[in-house]
Amino acid sequence: MYNFKFHNPVKIFFGKGEIEKITNEIPVGLKVMVFYGGGSIKRNGVYEQVMAALKDFEVVEFGGIEPNPQYDTLRKGIEMVRQEKVGFLLGVGGGSVLDGTKFIAAAYYYDGDPWDIVTKDVTLKKAIPLGTVLTLPATGSEMNGGAVISRASTREKRSFSSPLTLPRFSVLDPSVMHSLPDRQIQNGIIDTFVHVTEQYLTYPVGFQLQERFAEGILITLIEQGPKFLADKNNYNAAANIMWSATMALCGLISTGVPGDWATHNIGNELTAYHNIDHARTLAIVLPGVLQHQKEMKKERLLQYGEHVWGILTGREEDRICAAIWKTEAFFHFLGVPTHLRDYNVPESTIGLIKNRLAKLPNKLGENQDIGPEEIEEILRLRM
Amino acid sequence: MYNFKFHNPVKIFFGKGEIEKITNEIPVGLKVMVFYGGGSIKRNGVYEQVMAALKDFEVVEFGGIEPNPQYDTLRKGIEMVRQEKVGFLLGVGGGSVLDGTKFIAAAYYYDGDPWDIVTKDVTLKKAIPLGTVLTLPATGSEMNGGAVISRASTREKRSFSSPLTLPRFSVLDPSVMHSLPDRQIQNGIIDTFVHVTEQYLTYPVGFQLQERFAEGILITLIEQGPKFLADKNNYNAAANIMWSATMALCGLISTGVPGDWATHNIGNELTAYHNIDHARTLAIVLPGVLQHQKEMKKERLLQYGEHVWGILTGREEDRICAAIWKTEAFFHFLGVPTHLRDYNVPESTIGLIKNRLAKLPNKLGENQDIGPEEIEEILRLRM
Repeated sequence: MYNFKFHNPVKIFFGKGEIEKITNEIPVGLKVMVFYGGGSIKRNGVYEQVMAALKDFEVVEFGGIEPNPQYDTLRKGIEMVRQEKVGFLLGVGGGSVLDGTKFIAAAYYYDGDPWDIVTKDVTLKKAIPLGTVLTLPATGSEMNGGAVISRASTREKRSFSSPLTLPRFSVLDPSVMHSLPDRQIQNGIIDTFVHVTEQYLTYPVGFQLQERFAEGILITLIEQGPKFLADKNNYNAAANIMWSATMALCGLISTGVPGDWATHNIGNELTAYHNIDHARTLAIVLPGVLQHQKEMKKERLLQYGEHVWGILTGREEDRICAAIWKTEAFFHFLGVPTHLRDYNVPESTIGLIKNRLAKLPNKLGENQDIGPEEIEEILRLRM
Repeated sequence: MYNFKFHNPVKIFFGKGEIEKITNEIPVGLKVMVFYGGGSIKRNGVYEQVMAALKDFEVVEFGGIEPNPQYDTLRKGIEMVRQEKVGFLLGVGGGSVLDGTKFIAAAYYYDGDPWDIVTKDVTLKKAIPLGTVLTLPATGSEMNGGAVISRASTREKRSFSSPLTLPRFSVLDPSVMHSLPDRQIQNGIIDTFVHVTEQYLTYPVGFQLQERFAEGILITLIEQGPKFLADKNNYNAAANIMWSATMALCGLISTGVPGDWATHNIGNELTAYHNIDHARTLAIVLPGVLQHQKEMKKERLLQYGEHVWGILTGREEDRICAAIWKTEAFFHFLGVPTHLRDYNVPESTIGLIKNRLAKLPNKLGENQDIGPEEIEEILRLRM
C-alpha cells in the first residue's frame, strides 16, 4: 500500500431539516450569491428553506447552471460576482451546480483565461469561500475540492481540483430527494457505483480496510438503490444513497490505493460529443473496461464477485464473467441502457474519441496500459 | 437513522518515513514542547526522526507520561508549558501520551481547577495548538478531540472532548510498530475492536452503510491482527491495524447511529480500581454486556454473527451465543485473558463499581437500561 495524506475539513450537516444550519456557518456581513440549476429547488421546498436561512444576509441569485455546467454560463457568473461584490458563494443543487460554483470561486481570483484552470497545471492562490446544499447525490462534489466543467463550443469536458475550493460546509438533507425524477436517481446511483469501482477494481496493494469500505458502499448501493427507486418516500434508502455518494469521493477510499479512472476519461468524451448523461456514459464504458482488462484486474474481479455479488463457486474465468455481467445487469435493473447503440452513438464517434485521447500525455488505467488502440477496442465492445 | 454533524479537519500523514512532514506543519517561530511516555521512542528511532524534523525549532521535552495518563503528572506538564512559554505541543506516543498532551493544551487556558475539565460540563474557550506522532494504534486519539485522564489519588478515570483539542496534524507511520511488545499490540487490536462494537452492536436504525463500515473494520482486525502478532515486520498488517484504529474513533462510524459505551464505562472502573490495561478491561466486560443484553441487541448480534463471523445457520439463540463466544475466543486467540479472576480482581470490587456507577446521572447502554443491578449482573458473569 502507498503512503498517503488525508485531509478533509468539510463540515457536513446531514439529515432532514438541516438546511437551517447554514445561517450560522456563513460569516456575518458577507453578501451571498446563491447558485442553482433549472429551478427544481423552487418546486421542492429547498429554495424556501435556503432563503429562510439566509434572511439576515444580503443575497443575489444566479440560476440556470446546466447539467455538465457550461463554461460560457459560468463566465457570466464570474462577471456577476464581480459586479455584485459578493463575499460568499452558496451552490444549491446537484454536482453540476456545485462544480460550477467551485469554478466561479476559483476563477474570480485567477488572472489569466479562466479556461486555463481546467486545461493547464495552474496554481490557484485564492478562491471565494463557498458552501453547498446538496439536492442530488452523485458526484461527491459536496465533500471534495474537485469540479468538472464543459465547453460546448469545443466539445470539451475537463476538470480541476484544489483545496481552496473545498466547501466550508455542505448540507445533505436526504428528504429533498423524494421529488427527484427516476433518471437523476438512476444516474446518482451509477455515478457513485463507478466512483467506487474506479478506486477498487484495480490491483491489490494489501490495504484490506479500504477494500472493505469500497465493498460496503457497493453493497449498500445495490441494496438501497432499487428500494429508493421503488419508494421515494423511503428516507433511510435516500440517506444511505446520499452518504454513499459522499463517502465514495471524499478521499476516504482512494487513500493508499491505486486508481483506474479510464471509465471516466472515456465516458467524459461521450458526454462531450453526444451530451449523454455522465452516469450513463459510465454505465456504457465500465463493462467494456472490465472485460478488456480482466486479466490485469483478475484478482480483484474475483474478490469483487465473491464479496459484493456472492459468486463463490465455478471456474475463475466464469466467476469473472459473472461479476462483470452482474454489474451490467444491475445498471439494467435500475433502468439504464448500457450500449452505445442505445444512445444512437455512431461508430464514427469511436475514432474521434480515440484520436482525442491519443493526445493525452499518459495512457489510461491503473497500469497506464490503455492507449488509443485499447480505447477503440473497449468502445467496440460496447456498440 | 439520526441527523448528524460530521467535521474532522485533522490532517493525516500516513506511511513509512512520513514523520519528516511535521517540519512544514508547525508554524515557524513557535517553541515546541515534545511529550512522550516511558522512553520507547528513544529506542525505536522515532525520537531521532522527530528531532530531525524539528531541527529548526526551539524544542523542550516532557517525558514520563504514563499509560492511563495521570493528572498529577500532567499538572507538572502544564506548569512547564507556562514556564517555557511554549507555542505548540507535539505528542509522540500512544493514546495516553496523546490524551495527556490534549489535556495540557486545554488546561493551559482554563482558569479554574483543571480537573473540572473532565468532571464538569465546562466550556473551553481556547487551547494550545497541537500535533501528534502516533506510535501505537489503539485509542483513535490521533484523529479526534477526546482524551481520557486518570487520577490515582481518587481512583478516577474521566474523559473530555473538544474541537479545540483536535490535532492540527497526525503522523501515522506503521513501520514504527515493529518494536511494540505483544501486549501493546494485543491491547491496540482489542481497544479498536471494542470501539467499533460500541457503535455497532446496538439496535438498527437503517443506516446500512455505517453497518458495512463497522463490519469492515472488525473483519480487518480479525484477519490482520493475528498476522501482525505473528510477524511484526508485516508492514501491510501493521498499516491495516493502524488505519482501522483511526477510522474506528474519528467520528466516521458513529454518525447517525446510537452508541452503547457501557463496556467502556464499566471497564474504566476496573482500570481505576485495579490498574488493569484499558483494552483488557474491555475484553473482560464486552462478552458480559453482550450476554446480558442479548435480547435488546438480538437483531444486530445475528447480523454480526453472519457478516463478521460467517455464522449462517442454526437457531437464532445458538447463533447469538456463537457470535458472542467467537468474540471472546478472538480475544483469547490474541493472547488476552477475559475473566476477572485472571486479573485477581476480588468479588468485592463488583460492589465498589456498582456503587460508584450508581451515582451517574443516567443508566448505561444505548437504551439506558444498564443500571447498578445490571452492572453487578454483568460483572458476576465475568468472574
